[in-house]
Amino acid sequence: MKDWQIKLHTIIFEADTRAGKLFDVVLLWAILISVLLVMGESVKGLRIEYGRFFHIAEWFFTILFTLEYILRLICVHKPIKYIFSFYGIIDLLSIIPTYLALFFIDTRSLRVIRSLRLLRVFRVLKLGRFVKESDLLMEALKNSRYRITVFLFAVLAVTSIMGTVMYLVESPETGFTSIPRSIYWAIVTLTTVGFGDIAPQSDLGQFIASIVMVLGYAIIAIPTGIITGEVIKSTDTSNINTQVCINCQHDKHDTDAKYCKMCGTEL
Amino acid sequence: MKDWQIKLHTIIFEADTRAGKLFDVVLLWAILISVLLVMGESVKGLRIEYGRFFHIAEWFFTILFTLEYILRLICVHKPIKYIFSFYGIIDLLSIIPTYLALFFIDTRSLRVIRSLRLLRVFRVLKLGRFVKESDLLMEALKNSRYRITVFLFAVLAVTSIMGTVMYLVESPETGFTSIPRSIYWAIVTLTTVGFGDIAPQSDLGQFIASIVMVLGYAIIAIPTGIITGEVIKSTDTSNINTQVCINCQHDKHDTDAKYCKMCGTEL
Amino acid sequence: MKDWQIKLHTIIFEADTRAGKLFDVVLLWAILISVLLVMGESVKGLRIEYGRFFHIAEWFFTILFTLEYILRLICVHKPIKYIFSFYGIIDLLSIIPTYLALFFIDTRSLRVIRSLRLLRVFRVLKLGRFVKESDLLMEALKNSRYRITVFLFAVLAVTSIMGTVMYLVESPETGFTSIPRSIYWAIVTLTTVGFGDIAPQSDLGQFIASIVMVLGYAIIAIPTGIITGEVIKSTDTSNINTQVCINCQHDKHDTDAKYCKMCGTEL
Amino acid sequence: MKDWQIKLHTIIFEADTRAGKLFDVVLLWAILISVLLVMGESVKGLRIEYGRFFHIAEWFFTILFTLEYILRLICVHKPIKYIFSFYGIIDLLSIIPTYLALFFIDTRSLRVIRSLRLLRVFRVLKLGRFVKESDLLMEALKNSRYRITVFLFAVLAVTSIMGTVMYLVESPETGFTSIPRSIYWAIVTLTTVGFGDIAPQSDLGQFIASIVMVLGYAIIAIPTGIITGEVIKSTDTSNINTQVCINCQHDKHDTDAKYCKMCGTEL
Repeated sequence: MKDWQIKLHTIIFEADTRAGKLFDVVLLWAILISVLLVMGESVKGLRIEYGRFFHIAEWFFTILFTLEYILRLICVHKPIKYIFSFYGIIDLLSIIPTYLALFFIDTRSLRVIRSLRLLRVFRVLKLGRFVKESDLLMEALKNSRYRITVFLFAVLAVTSIMGTVMYLVESPETGFTSIPRSIYWAIVTLTTVGFGDIAPQSDLGQFIASIVMVLGYAIIAIPTGIITGEVIKSTDTSNINTQVCINCQHDKHDTDAKYCKMCGTEL
Repeated sequence: MKDWQIKLHTIIFEADTRAGKLFDVVLLWAILISVLLVMGESVKGLRIEYGRFFHIAEWFFTILFTLEYILRLICVHKPIKYIFSFYGIIDLLSIIPTYLALFFIDTRSLRVIRSLRLLRVFRVLKLGRFVKESDLLMEALKNSRYRITVFLFAVLAVTSIMGTVMYLVESPETGFTSIPRSIYWAIVTLTTVGFGDIAPQSDLGQFIASIVMVLGYAIIAIPTGIITGEVIKSTDTSNINTQVCINCQHDKHDTDAKYCKMCGTEL
Repeated sequence: MKDWQIKLHTIIFEADTRAGKLFDVVLLWAILISVLLVMGESVKGLRIEYGRFFHIAEWFFTILFTLEYILRLICVHKPIKYIFSFYGIIDLLSIIPTYLALFFIDTRSLRVIRSLRLLRVFRVLKLGRFVKESDLLMEALKNSRYRITVFLFAVLAVTSIMGTVMYLVESPETGFTSIPRSIYWAIVTLTTVGFGDIAPQSDLGQFIASIVMVLGYAIIAIPTGIITGEVIKSTDTSNINTQVCINCQHDKHDTDAKYCKMCGTEL
Repeated sequence: MKDWQIKLHTIIFEADTRAGKLFDVVLLWAILISVLLVMGESVKGLRIEYGRFFHIAEWFFTILFTLEYILRLICVHKPIKYIFSFYGIIDLLSIIPTYLALFFIDTRSLRVIRSLRLLRVFRVLKLGRFVKESDLLMEALKNSRYRITVFLFAVLAVTSIMGTVMYLVESPETGFTSIPRSIYWAIVTLTTVGFGDIAPQSDLGQFIASIVMVLGYAIIAIPTGIITGEVIKSTDTSNINTQVCINCQHDKHDTDAKYCKMCGTEL
């Protein structure tokens, strides 16, 4: 690997140097502005009036991201591995749609392809300062995956039973036409979404619905409790370093500690 | 009890051996696929096109689960106790509906019976890795049952009062036709479900509704706080070591404990 | 105060003796059944068919609660203070409506009076085992009252601004007819209730609504964080007693500790 | 700076003296009453009947707040800095609208200007007892800003993808007329708001909607976990003592610290 490749790698993949930081900030703004442009373009009034501007801006950002993608390919050690990594695919998906749009004329396909450009927002998670935080959240979610699964099965079981009960209690005219649709209503209600397209009309139906709602209102505490517990645990350990005092063997020093808080020896 | 019964028991009820783990994984996938099939069958379009496939798959899984049920009966120490235990009933309920469906022709009853097969999802909670997690959640809920009850009574009281106030303030034309229906509306609103089938129209009614909503938005913090507290406490295994007192067999000592807190013996 | 009064006081106001526990359990069931009856009576179908049964049951519970109220008055030290205390008023309000209903014939007033009987649910909070828990929750709420107030003002400010913005953006035809009504919509949306009686139709309106929703979705974390913090703090201290070891001065022993965990001295 | 200015400063900006406390309480009530009056005035029925009263009360409070604004300008050290500070602007915005209303006749502009008076609620956050609490909440939010940003990007990404999927699955007749509108629906659903103006009708659409709802129901746990963690950490003053190192002036030492963790000096 040549010298300029290593230098480029430092700028693009690390955020410790001044050039690296600048690169991150420029990229962050480029991503945000391009996402806002994609959103703005979808507002009909704006598209008609500023269509030409959106077109130019879109190509500007696509070429910018294409250049960045090529630079990344040049300076990574294993380009193939990068291309098929999660972020490599996201990087590719955020530039391809604009090129693809040249070959499609069908409006529906075009709209789907254009909306794919919104995947660019994922690129932000790759930038220096967010990596640590998103890793931390991912860690918390991973640690609580079995508990969350148990919770999801419980929700599924409760909504299945409640939905079936509502199907038997309510008349089909109020929207409870079948068991799956009643289960759908139970999910809408338990999660406190409450569209209101299907709603109980009978007294007994409203009574059962009340139970489902209060249940949903209380059950939401369970995933919150699980994830809060994980976040607190992961935050706790990140503030305490693993250094042990050479004089008194005391550990659990704060990360910013320079001297042992028990005997005053330098760490 | 014979030797092959003990061996079978190890495979079916424990997850420590390789065969036991494999059994658990196979069963997990069988449950998930069969539940998805039950759900898929209820989608009208799929039922018409792939009805024959659903029929065969259903009988395949029912026979599989029946075999498993018989094997469990054979190898447990007290079959009667197992049959009437919570999981024994669930196991039975997840195979019976398919057989029952042979004797019923009435569409409505059939649908209810068929939907009972969804109870199979509960079987997942029995599988090795989920037992510990679901026990932990159950423990957290059990520890906070009095607090949750107090909370539910408070919700009931608030919605009763607010519902009655709305009944007096709003005209019956907007849906507040009776006090119980107004209480139903208050529950719908306080739990932030908000169907919208009943909604205040007068200025004063909307003002009171705003209070109910903000109240509900803040009150949800209470069960969350309670359960989060419990979950954190139960997860906090890092403060309790696994030492057992040699004198009084008491466990659950703090990590920094040097003497048993129950009998004073050195640990 | 005579001897039988003290004995009566122990039974009614304390839950330590067997008689006191029995009294609490009987009262709990009496309250729950009478509340269910009040609810059941309001269901039209049940009222018509079982009207006579509801009438008799209502008078049974009213006389029971009246007797209990008189007994309480007899055995408390300061009857006047009890009458005007929070629970004294609740006790009175849960028996008066039935008597008042004799003098009113107007259906509307009658319904309001009858619904007042639902206030009986508050009586449960007075029973032995719930007192500690409801005190704990009240304590947590009281400790966080300034923070909750700050939060409520912030919600009020955000909804005022967002409501006004929506009034300017959306046309009156979609329901945003005035600023207060738009603020009402903002509260409905921020608290994630979402009735749907007023909903934005324009692209810009839906974009702003999305911001309000995501804001509300994230803001709900604030009261939850505040109250969870308080609940955890109050639970923590209730598990640690205030005893200090006479030998080594170590404190923070668990409530069930009999010997000092640091030196083994009896506490 | 003269003596009476310093005295005035103590009364207006500090809450330690009796006069300062009195000033805070009077101002708190003046703000609350004036905000309630602004709200009350917007209720049509009240405005017509008590219009004259509202008019007089409005001018009373405006003159009161104007006087207070002038007094603040007189006694602060740097008036210019105060005028352009956050609270200086809020103070000005809460008195200007009433004066401006004299020059506008157009009803629409007038209503906007009048509603600006609601910004007065922000003034409460400046009062003694709330400053500490709102600072604490702000601190918690500031500390978790990167994590919250990551969370918001994740929500944005999930809703973009789910919205696009729904656009492809559902027919335009049910309200999913375009991708942005479908993303709007996904946000409405994921945040559990659920207006119901757009709702899936097909079986597959309702199945996907169920996934979005359960996802939203579980995802809400993430910001809650993040902010709860921060609030608990910031409340956890019991672990940090108030000792300041005599050598290096470092504070925030743990309660059990015996030596300064920064320079090793004995505390």
